Amino acid sequence: MHRFDDPKYRFDFSLIEKMSDTCSNWGKWGPDDEFGTLNYVGPEQRKHAATLVKKGKAMSVGLNFDDQGPQRGLFGGRWNPIHTMLATGTDAVQGKQKVPGKKYANQYADDAVSMPLQCGTQWDALGHVFNRGKMWNGYDATLVGSRGAEKNSIDKMKDKMFGRGILLDIARWAGVESLEDGTAIDSEDLDACAKAQGVEIRQGDFVLYRTGHMERCLKNKEWGGYAGGNAPGVSFHTCKWMHEKKIAAICADTWGCEVIPNETDDVFQPWHWIVIPQIGITMGEIFYMKDLADDCVEDKVYEFLFCAPPLPISRGVGSPINPMAVK
Amino acid sequence: MHRFDDPKYRFDFSLIEKMSDTCSNWGKWGPDDEFGTLNYVGPEQRKHAATLVKKGKAMSVGLNFDDQGPQRGLFGGRWNPIHTMLATGTDAVQGKQKVPGKKYANQYADDAVSMPLQCGTQWDALGHVFNRGKMWNGYDATLVGSRGAEKNSIDKMKDKMFGRGILLDIARWAGVESLEDGTAIDSEDLDACAKAQGVEIRQGDFVLYRTGHMERCLKNKEWGGYAGGNAPGVSFHTCKWMHEKKIAAICADTWGCEVIPNETDDVFQPWHWIVIPQIGITMGEIFYMKDLADDCVEDKVYEFLFCAPPLPISRGVGSPINPMAVK
Amino acid sequence: MHRFDDPKYRFDFSLIEKMSDTCSNWGKWGPDDEFGTLNYVGPEQRKHAATLVKKGKAMSVGLNFDDQGPQRGLFGGRWNPIHTMLATGTDAVQGKQKVPGKKYANQYADDAVSMPLQCGTQWDALGHVFNRGKMWNGYDATLVGSRGAEKNSIDKMKDKMFGRGILLDIARWAGVESLEDGTAIDSEDLDACAKAQGVEIRQGDFVLYRTGHMERCLKNKEWGGYAGGNAPGVSFHTCKWMHEKKIAAICADTWGCEVIPNETDDVFQPWHWIVIPQIGITMGEIFYMKDLADDCVEDKVYEFLFCAPPLPISRGVGSPINPMAVK
Amino acid sequence: MHRFDDPKYRFDFSLIEKMSDTCSNWGKWGPDDEFGTLNYVGPEQRKHAATLVKKGKAMSVGLNFDDQGPQRGLFGGRWNPIHTMLATGTDAVQGKQKVPGKKYANQYADDAVSMPLQCGTQWDALGHVFNRGKMWNGYDATLVGSRGAEKNSIDKMKDKMFGRGILLDIARWAGVESLEDGTAIDSEDLDACAKAQGVEIRQGDFVLYRTGHMERCLKNKEWGGYAGGNAPGVSFHTCKWMHEKKIAAICADTWGCEVIPNETDDVFQPWHWIVIPQIGITMGEIFYMKDLADDCVEDKVYEFLFCAPPLPISRGVGSPINPMAVK
Repeated sequence: MHRFDDPKYRFDFSLIEKMSDTCSNWGKWGPDDEFGTLNYVGPEQRKHAATLVKKGKAMSVGLNFDDQGPQRGLFGGRWNPIHTMLATGTDAVQGKQKVPGKKYANQYADDAVSMPLQCGTQWDALGHVFNRGKMWNGYDATLVGSRGAEKNSIDKMKDKMFGRGILLDIARWAGVESLEDGTAIDSEDLDACAKAQGVEIRQGDFVLYRTGHMERCLKNKEWGGYAGGNAPGVSFHTCKWMHEKKIAAICADTWGCEVIPNETDDVFQPWHWIVIPQIGITMGEIFYMKDLADDCVEDKVYEFLFCAPPLPISRGVGSPINPMAVK
Repeated sequence: MHRFDDPKYRFDFSLIEKMSDTCSNWGKWGPDDEFGTLNYVGPEQRKHAATLVKKGKAMSVGLNFDDQGPQRGLFGGRWNPIHTMLATGTDAVQGKQKVPGKKYANQYADDAVSMPLQCGTQWDALGHVFNRGKMWNGYDATLVGSRGAEKNSIDKMKDKMFGRGILLDIARWAGVESLEDGTAIDSEDLDACAKAQGVEIRQGDFVLYRTGHMERCLKNKEWGGYAGGNAPGVSFHTCKWMHEKKIAAICADTWGCEVIPNETDDVFQPWHWIVIPQIGITMGEIFYMKDLADDCVEDKVYEFLFCAPPLPISRGVGSPINPMAVK
Repeated sequence: MHRFDDPKYRFDFSLIEKMSDTCSNWGKWGPDDEFGTLNYVGPEQRKHAATLVKKGKAMSVGLNFDDQGPQRGLFGGRWNPIHTMLATGTDAVQGKQKVPGKKYANQYADDAVSMPLQCGTQWDALGHVFNRGKMWNGYDATLVGSRGAEKNSIDKMKDKMFGRGILLDIARWAGVESLEDGTAIDSEDLDACAKAQGVEIRQGDFVLYRTGHMERCLKNKEWGGYAGGNAPGVSFHTCKWMHEKKIAAICADTWGCEVIPNETDDVFQPWHWIVIPQIGITMGEIFYMKDLADDCVEDKVYEFLFCAPPLPISRGVGSPINPMAVK
Repeated sequence: MHRFDDPKYRFDFSLIEKMSDTCSNWGKWGPDDEFGTLNYVGPEQRKHAATLVKKGKAMSVGLNFDDQGPQRGLFGGRWNPIHTMLATGTDAVQGKQKVPGKKYANQYADDAVSMPLQCGTQWDALGHVFNRGKMWNGYDATLVGSRGAEKNSIDKMKDKMFGRGILLDIARWAGVESLEDGTAIDSEDLDACAKAQGVEIRQGDFVLYRTGHMERCLKNKEWGGYAGGNAPGVSFHTCKWMHEKKIAAICADTWGCEVIPNETDDVFQPWHWIVIPQIGITMGEIFYMKDLADDCVEDKVYEFLFCAPPLPISRGVGSPINPMAVK
């Protein structure tokens, strides 16, 4: 691990350009592909995932969706979920829910939500981030207009989010409650943590790593800059690792997976530029990992069946999710 | 099966009162329970569910969420999902996404949704329906006010929706593409269909039954009264079956599971009055079952791992979902 | 008046190009202007408008905003207003609105709305329509991105919508309840109607014209294609009239002011291309004119004080309004 | 003026009960009335209002609606307006807005807003506040359920908000930039300020009073507790003044008109309990008064034509507005 501002790791835009080539999977699964590295998950991976259910324990790896969420308007105008009731029990008991032609009024409650698709625990679709005008597999960024994404939308993944999950508990491995903001995790750290935990990273894995950032905020009852501000996270230089490991997806307990401040002054979130549009990895963010991590440290098993179906919002570039880990 | 207006099956409010007692599970899992029949799913059921993954095939049982959904304003003011873009690729390529202090503009897309929680494929929470002022486990209906459900909300189920699923393909068993609106399915039909399919209904099962209603609408490219109007579905008299089978959840490819018009003039959706508040069954609606049904008829296997995590919307009385069946 | 398909009036894109030049007011009020023809309304016009209040009668010229509005998804994904309650009297009477530290609970209701800014009675801002990549006064269309309009937004007009209004009751003048869809109103008709009504059109006027289209829909209790489909309205060839009369704004009881189908096959709503971006006229649509028209026919006075303040939504390209006519 | 905690002015619930009777206008305009004190505005008042337009200057008394508004989640879950684009110029210039059957693509922008009706400059409808289960004119509070207000909704006022406005610039009269939070304005202050300004308060007036609270927040670029927290405002004891003066409406540059903390421990906003449900006064809040106040101090004229039409949202209990003062 290193600090984001360690000169040894600083870089400029030319490295982004270079890594865009080095780590590109464009065309690997044909010119029409919209799945990216989810192609690494096949029947064998799914069958194997099911064998990981050994004690029959299911855990949610998602944060509740409500007005206590992390959004503070720091980035792009995202807001916390707005939950409104369309019908209530208080109405019901006062006979307000009459049904024409029926003798007795019904009694029910109904509700609605308005939320950014990336405001809480979520998948980023492959159409969420572009690199110099292009998105995953070389599709033009302009295919994502005001009516949504014509390519690489989240609904394409509707039956893909099922496989082997592994947890890399970086914070615990590093011996801290949570990594400090600005701490960059290296590829070596990911490998060493996996080794220490006795878990192997395999093709098609859904890799979750824990920095402790969310738990720090929850403990302090203050999100602060969690959504869009400084954070611990993976170094830009892990791009190659992400590419070579042939993982299906990468997920973190932070807002944006990668370290902030970034290791470059040239762009914001440089790792995103490579991982999503070039490698084609679906990214999971704002995962709540405490329960899962506590369970893993207890039974020493860091692999599990992972199932996190996105809402198939047509043309969407993200989706709120409630990921499940089952052991 | 019978027509909703078959005099032999007509009933009045007194039967609702009687069944409310006969089929009540209130207190069965203690006075504080908010899980209802999801209590029937334990470690054994989850471990068994995992063994059903035999060929490694994952299927979504959910409809896409978009403005082509079934809502037509027939009931309670529900609308189809409204998907709006907060940032676009067309903006990105024109350099509109500058980040203060960075040399190059970022390029990304972002989006939001506004939707009733019950507008598409969904879970009804136990706080969704009341029976004479009470909801599941005897909680007062007034606990569901304009700020949401203080009890029996959907977020309580966040790690519960994983287990053995079975499909009862009633339409195919009956030899039709889809059951006609107003056709009521009897308990005997459910049993006979299961037997014909060679699948046993067990405690803790997530039971999906298919009427063909949704596929009829999709084929005709016209939802018509799908959301709130007439439909095929289970008879009110199946309440007892639902209770005795100790199933975890019941799901259909219709808007409201039960037959409409109803078999009584006294209330709308009488089966709801018993199944949700008295038995404590979580109900799944508007499931898209074509792919799953096609697969089942092909491999003759009607059981599968079922995973359908709700969005844990705090105090919500429902949740949009993307249910997965894995075989 | 003529039919939209009368060969005598058909035209192609070259006329749009020509009229864009002929009718341009770009630069007329300086390179930084964002008011367009609202510049024609000054202190004299406002003082004169006030003198038109003679009998002290105020009338709304707006339609209610609710789920019974005209939107049917025909154009651009607009929906009818969604009104949701955040707090209710039914909650209140059950003591749900406790305030920390206070002995008695408060009792109140609160609500919210989600609506397209152009879904009902509305102003189009000058940033609403572009002509070959440019908007009013030559500003680039790309100044209107996903974060709204950097130029020509509706909030700029916040103190401008007050002046002399006149009604041209074209339908009544033509002796019909409502003009048929596809009927194009000519400049000569506007002049003749004004003359017949004894009202002079002056610089800085807010000109309202009535086709009877909305009233036809309300009478038939069926909006049909009102929002986006066929309609009566002004001919493309009135552009010159709009320009020369130096009016402040033009308003109609239809969805889009101009005749649909259009008199050209080359573009949709060609009149919009000229009137908004080139002349700089703010356009009012979906006005409810029955009460005003009934009053005018009764007292034979077709001029009035007109006040229709937009909601100053920052960077908005339209605004719902409740226009008032006071006589 | 006095501090909210001055023992001389403290009171308990019994005074609320007493004032509810003393200041009640229930039945005054018949049992079916839903206008309240707006009944005081008739043709004479409107004609007189028009005579106040002397220099032809129009001013907005409203705050812009955007994400920089005052809401901080302090009360009832209100949020700042969320403005989203449905179509953009950046899309347009890239030819994304093709129209079927047309040779050239259209070019336009479109947008939407989601907002609480009381999040910015607004009218409270008479159905917004209840007093012991009743609202204006004795209607039951339960008439306001999840589907909105069956009585006393804002759309009833659609043609009522036009008349004589007067400004009481209390802050300037008191010689301060803004009154301190917790400062209660007495009836004597209102009268003395009017006298000092040389303006008479008459039946049917729209009375605006300025505390400087909003301008303090705007100057400090920090809303803090503006929306729901402490504020200067009228004392509870002005209820009688509000009743006797027969004013049409009362409006302030604060979130809730009355002083906070309140002068009682028994309820929150006791003045609201009397003014809205008992007297039947429509209340205006979060008015932006700087421009108007600057103009008044300059020309020494504190009366003007006032026009503030609400959006006629069916069954709404409030409305965002852009009030206009014309002198």
